[in-house]
Amino acid sequence: MATEKLYFKNDYSEGACEQILRRFMEINYQQNTGYGTDEYCKSAEEKIRLACNCKDAQVKFICGGTQTNQLVISTMLQPFEGVIGTTTAHVAAHEAGAIEYSGHKVLTLPHHDGKIDPVELVDLIETFWNDDSHEHMVYPGMVYVSHPTELGTLYSKAELQAVANVCKNYNIPLYLDGARLGYGLMSEESDLTLEDIAELCDVFYIGGTKVGCLCGEAVVFTRNNMPKCFVAQIKQHGALMAKGWVTGLQFDTLFTDGLYYELGRHAIEMANLLKQGFVEKGYKLSVDSPTNQQFIVVDNEQHKKLSEIAVFENWERLDKEHTVVRFVTSWATKKETVEKLISLI
Amino acid sequence: MATEKLYFKNDYSEGACEQILRRFMEINYQQNTGYGTDEYCKSAEEKIRLACNCKDAQVKFICGGTQTNQLVISTMLQPFEGVIGTTTAHVAAHEAGAIEYSGHKVLTLPHHDGKIDPVELVDLIETFWNDDSHEHMVYPGMVYVSHPTELGTLYSKAELQAVANVCKNYNIPLYLDGARLGYGLMSEESDLTLEDIAELCDVFYIGGTKVGCLCGEAVVFTRNNMPKCFVAQIKQHGALMAKGWVTGLQFDTLFTDGLYYELGRHAIEMANLLKQGFVEKGYKLSVDSPTNQQFIVVDNEQHKKLSEIAVFENWERLDKEHTVVRFVTSWATKKETVEKLISLI
Amino acid sequence: MATEKLYFKNDYSEGACEQILRRFMEINYQQNTGYGTDEYCKSAEEKIRLACNCKDAQVKFICGGTQTNQLVISTMLQPFEGVIGTTTAHVAAHEAGAIEYSGHKVLTLPHHDGKIDPVELVDLIETFWNDDSHEHMVYPGMVYVSHPTELGTLYSKAELQAVANVCKNYNIPLYLDGARLGYGLMSEESDLTLEDIAELCDVFYIGGTKVGCLCGEAVVFTRNNMPKCFVAQIKQHGALMAKGWVTGLQFDTLFTDGLYYELGRHAIEMANLLKQGFVEKGYKLSVDSPTNQQFIVVDNEQHKKLSEIAVFENWERLDKEHTVVRFVTSWATKKETVEKLISLI
Amino acid sequence: MATEKLYFKNDYSEGACEQILRRFMEINYQQNTGYGTDEYCKSAEEKIRLACNCKDAQVKFICGGTQTNQLVISTMLQPFEGVIGTTTAHVAAHEAGAIEYSGHKVLTLPHHDGKIDPVELVDLIETFWNDDSHEHMVYPGMVYVSHPTELGTLYSKAELQAVANVCKNYNIPLYLDGARLGYGLMSEESDLTLEDIAELCDVFYIGGTKVGCLCGEAVVFTRNNMPKCFVAQIKQHGALMAKGWVTGLQFDTLFTDGLYYELGRHAIEMANLLKQGFVEKGYKLSVDSPTNQQFIVVDNEQHKKLSEIAVFENWERLDKEHTVVRFVTSWATKKETVEKLISLI
Repeated sequence: MATEKLYFKNDYSEGACEQILRRFMEINYQQNTGYGTDEYCKSAEEKIRLACNCKDAQVKFICGGTQTNQLVISTMLQPFEGVIGTTTAHVAAHEAGAIEYSGHKVLTLPHHDGKIDPVELVDLIETFWNDDSHEHMVYPGMVYVSHPTELGTLYSKAELQAVANVCKNYNIPLYLDGARLGYGLMSEESDLTLEDIAELCDVFYIGGTKVGCLCGEAVVFTRNNMPKCFVAQIKQHGALMAKGWVTGLQFDTLFTDGLYYELGRHAIEMANLLKQGFVEKGYKLSVDSPTNQQFIVVDNEQHKKLSEIAVFENWERLDKEHTVVRFVTSWATKKETVEKLISLI
Repeated sequence: MATEKLYFKNDYSEGACEQILRRFMEINYQQNTGYGTDEYCKSAEEKIRLACNCKDAQVKFICGGTQTNQLVISTMLQPFEGVIGTTTAHVAAHEAGAIEYSGHKVLTLPHHDGKIDPVELVDLIETFWNDDSHEHMVYPGMVYVSHPTELGTLYSKAELQAVANVCKNYNIPLYLDGARLGYGLMSEESDLTLEDIAELCDVFYIGGTKVGCLCGEAVVFTRNNMPKCFVAQIKQHGALMAKGWVTGLQFDTLFTDGLYYELGRHAIEMANLLKQGFVEKGYKLSVDSPTNQQFIVVDNEQHKKLSEIAVFENWERLDKEHTVVRFVTSWATKKETVEKLISLI
Repeated sequence: MATEKLYFKNDYSEGACEQILRRFMEINYQQNTGYGTDEYCKSAEEKIRLACNCKDAQVKFICGGTQTNQLVISTMLQPFEGVIGTTTAHVAAHEAGAIEYSGHKVLTLPHHDGKIDPVELVDLIETFWNDDSHEHMVYPGMVYVSHPTELGTLYSKAELQAVANVCKNYNIPLYLDGARLGYGLMSEESDLTLEDIAELCDVFYIGGTKVGCLCGEAVVFTRNNMPKCFVAQIKQHGALMAKGWVTGLQFDTLFTDGLYYELGRHAIEMANLLKQGFVEKGYKLSVDSPTNQQFIVVDNEQHKKLSEIAVFENWERLDKEHTVVRFVTSWATKKETVEKLISLI
Repeated sequence: MATEKLYFKNDYSEGACEQILRRFMEINYQQNTGYGTDEYCKSAEEKIRLACNCKDAQVKFICGGTQTNQLVISTMLQPFEGVIGTTTAHVAAHEAGAIEYSGHKVLTLPHHDGKIDPVELVDLIETFWNDDSHEHMVYPGMVYVSHPTELGTLYSKAELQAVANVCKNYNIPLYLDGARLGYGLMSEESDLTLEDIAELCDVFYIGGTKVGCLCGEAVVFTRNNMPKCFVAQIKQHGALMAKGWVTGLQFDTLFTDGLYYELGRHAIEMANLLKQGFVEKGYKLSVDSPTNQQFIVVDNEQHKKLSEIAVFENWERLDKEHTVVRFVTSWATKKETVEKLISLI
């Protein structure tokens, strides 16, 4: 609901980009076949294959991120396997146990600005295999990375390559959670393209909910490795939309004329403006995030002042005097809102 | 996708009613809080409470029907309990094992035009409790009815009351799957109101996906019996939408100025027109459905002819010569389409 | 506990055959490696391979029957698959939902004296595959038979072959629950050997709990098809015994010098004596069972009289006047107990 | 299997204490009712209630430890809750994901010689409840401690009291895994009695498999808090033994004339002898364990020498030169074996 305060709490507070709403209006009375068998899904899948330069990619559309993570992870793992992620990984910390609900453990590694260290990853896997009683332990069966990470940071191409190499060496699939992928791809600091990601990962998803859609994520299997009878498994998880075209149409729109990138770029520009503003006003960054989430260290007085002006998230209490707060921009953030914020702080 | 044939395959092929699309446009840049905590959800909840005349009803919005069924059933059952439904029940037959995926058995009863016979229900429950080894069996823990049923039929008020009485006697909650509830409420043969349903059932859902929404179902707990920490459980199932307001707004619209009923009435009018047309042209009905699904017995020649004109669903092969086919109308069905069909058969 | 009545309630009321107890005494202070890696398990596995004439058979020992069924079925099925059994199948009716707990549906067929009809089996599978919306249904992924069945009946070799042929045609594994296998193999009416079963089935288990062991069942995978990392999966189900040799030693004993068959033969002899006695005294059999479970139709007066003499199970209430009761013999049944029973009825 | 080396690998390599084997012989042909309804289970339950000085305690016997942990934790937790344990907790590290298989997360705390620090426990719980988005996280629903711990250490009464107080304050049940409880109770350093444990814990289990039984653990619910329909839930997990009296009889024996304590005391005496021997020979202990597991730091040369004499477990590689090894005694360890070991090192 509208608030008079300046709203930077998250990147899922507004609706959908106008092009998407317009298409909903246009095709409203068309009669589409159900469950993702329609032409919009097909067209979107093809456009995504092209954008990934991965002609055999298998693409499916799911309504939300946690659902996607649960579905991909649980259908790709063997029953005795777990998924490796950092302690900050969304699947480890903020999905209410959705992975465990599906029967699998999340094996955690320390995070480094939200990222996995490939040496520590090797160590976890080697320790497992070298343990005489590893049959009594959870097998490492997948590696989960988020990009951008939950802390707004990015894997460089070399970093993701290093993780992918470990996965390849141990024959473990690499899964990239791209809930905010558009904001990662458009960051000035990013040297990773969608093509690179498709090449390095066994499966990933392109986030729509946070990047211009009402709802929807596009899962991409890059090695002809979509789990058997995947549609039945989506249904079994309660995740098969009757009007599958609702997500298909949105992604078809996002991947027409580079709209997905354009939305991403806008959020990054707003984030840079906001970050620069905070820095110039003497605020200290908690992490130097190159994406649309900005983490700022504030003292209690600053916190009070900011709370009067804006809506944001309290990320972490550092000590009695200091808190890390999060400001988020999105495809929908208006320049004047950022400028007003900066003028007021 | 548009087809030149007349399309009667289902009630989820079009988009959303115009009032909904219009509101999406209007509020597109408003900034709403996430996960169903927004004002549209609150407003829709209140309107549904009023429509149900159940002031303590607890209402939550879920994206789709199978998800809703899995969520409601698995969170209301104890681990050792199963849900009772007919062999035709959607949860028994057409949800890819979503209930079993959540760890629970579907205990089946024969169906009578898609409905549960209360005497057979008593018998199943009594047989269980009278069995000396019932600790080795699945406990009957919930009764599932769909209204309209999967065969388009309706429970009369007396019939639903009878099932509800059994449930009450045995202290088993009654759950009504209202995927097509709007079409049931508006059927001329229905003597059940939304208020009646709220009074008789412990939990039910008002279907949106098939009655004017892009997606969404409204679950209503009527006895202050929403499962503990239900939001966490929705999240754990992967079913918590970040933009919860997307469903809230739609239901807020449906329950403004009687729109939900209006949409339902239209589909029923179209179904009656269609049914009458088929009957007048000498076709035989398989079930005398008073709702938006019409089941017609056709011989092979009729089948061939109809297939050239229209898109519909093959429901059941009766014998080498005859098939039951299903024609479905919806809120979006155009009168001229029905008239054209009738003129051609 | 000892009762003065004659006890025919089941085949798991006594301890273990003396040879087994003796060996427990003998090796009590030997130090064995844990979790089934010991020499007794190895030896038992080899003896079972020989008895099955299946040199590549993979054998594992599990503590009980329901555990075995849950483990075998859930580890061999894909997540979207269910297991087909009759309505009388133990897994369908009397395991408290253990299969559903593991996420899988039991797809039921009518029973014919407890057995599957291969034509009905084909029909179930064909109906599934011919349904346009089978992606919304549970895939038939395994066939479950029990031999002897829950009604004491036996598959003939031709009958089991027919079921196996269907399974082979549709590439679905056939699983035989042999909780009472010893009593089936030794029935005079049986033309099925252990070798036949190993040839026809993809997996089966040789029951120990009901045939001379304190506890234990031997699972046999016959096609080099033991599920991947099966030991880890046993552990994950909580079913891996620290002292795995406790079951290994018992099966090693049972498969030495034909003890398993000898125990089976004794129970069959006792059952025949009992059956003949009942028939001669004018009692009517409910099913003509050739194994150790005998089902007798009694009127209320007979029921009263029998209840004063013996302990047995009430199987099914036929009408106000008649009940089917079950009398069971085992490896431990004493001839004088049967003779006394017959003399008293 | 017998080995010529001195065997200190674990405490589950031998059979059962002689009193138990003798009783198996004695009652072998008695006919007991099934599934734990027999008189031996009843008697054992009563003896355990007395030993715990907890007259309302509800006691059930389960075959093994992992099964018990999975069963107790999953039936006591709400679906959205997880269990808190240390990183060394058996349920966290060495049960192949059995807890996650049942749908629940293990929330980990650092360990302090294998134990939970109550301040860190409070912090975990407070952090959860203070997090605005805790509905997106796994609820802390139970605290798991093992006593003795996986490192052989013991909670003092004050320490367990402190953990219990936290649990009580937050209304979270405290569960104690007593796989080796007998060895804890009889340690000279222990000031915790069985009565104390029954008073402080909401549920715990008394380990039999490692303390004199062939198999079996006794679960004790101390607050009239046994989960609803617990027998059905045991069955559903595949954990209900047909011959329930097999475990009942063993515990009835263990809790007659203080046998359980006697077995425990012997193992402790052997452990003390062994520990003293190692120390006198100049070996360094890794943890100062007062129970039957002894952890010794050895250099490569020592390791080689010990490996020629004895069988033990490699616990942890410290560095290129040093390893922690584990030597375990039990109720069955012979004094001459320990003495021989000490003489040879």
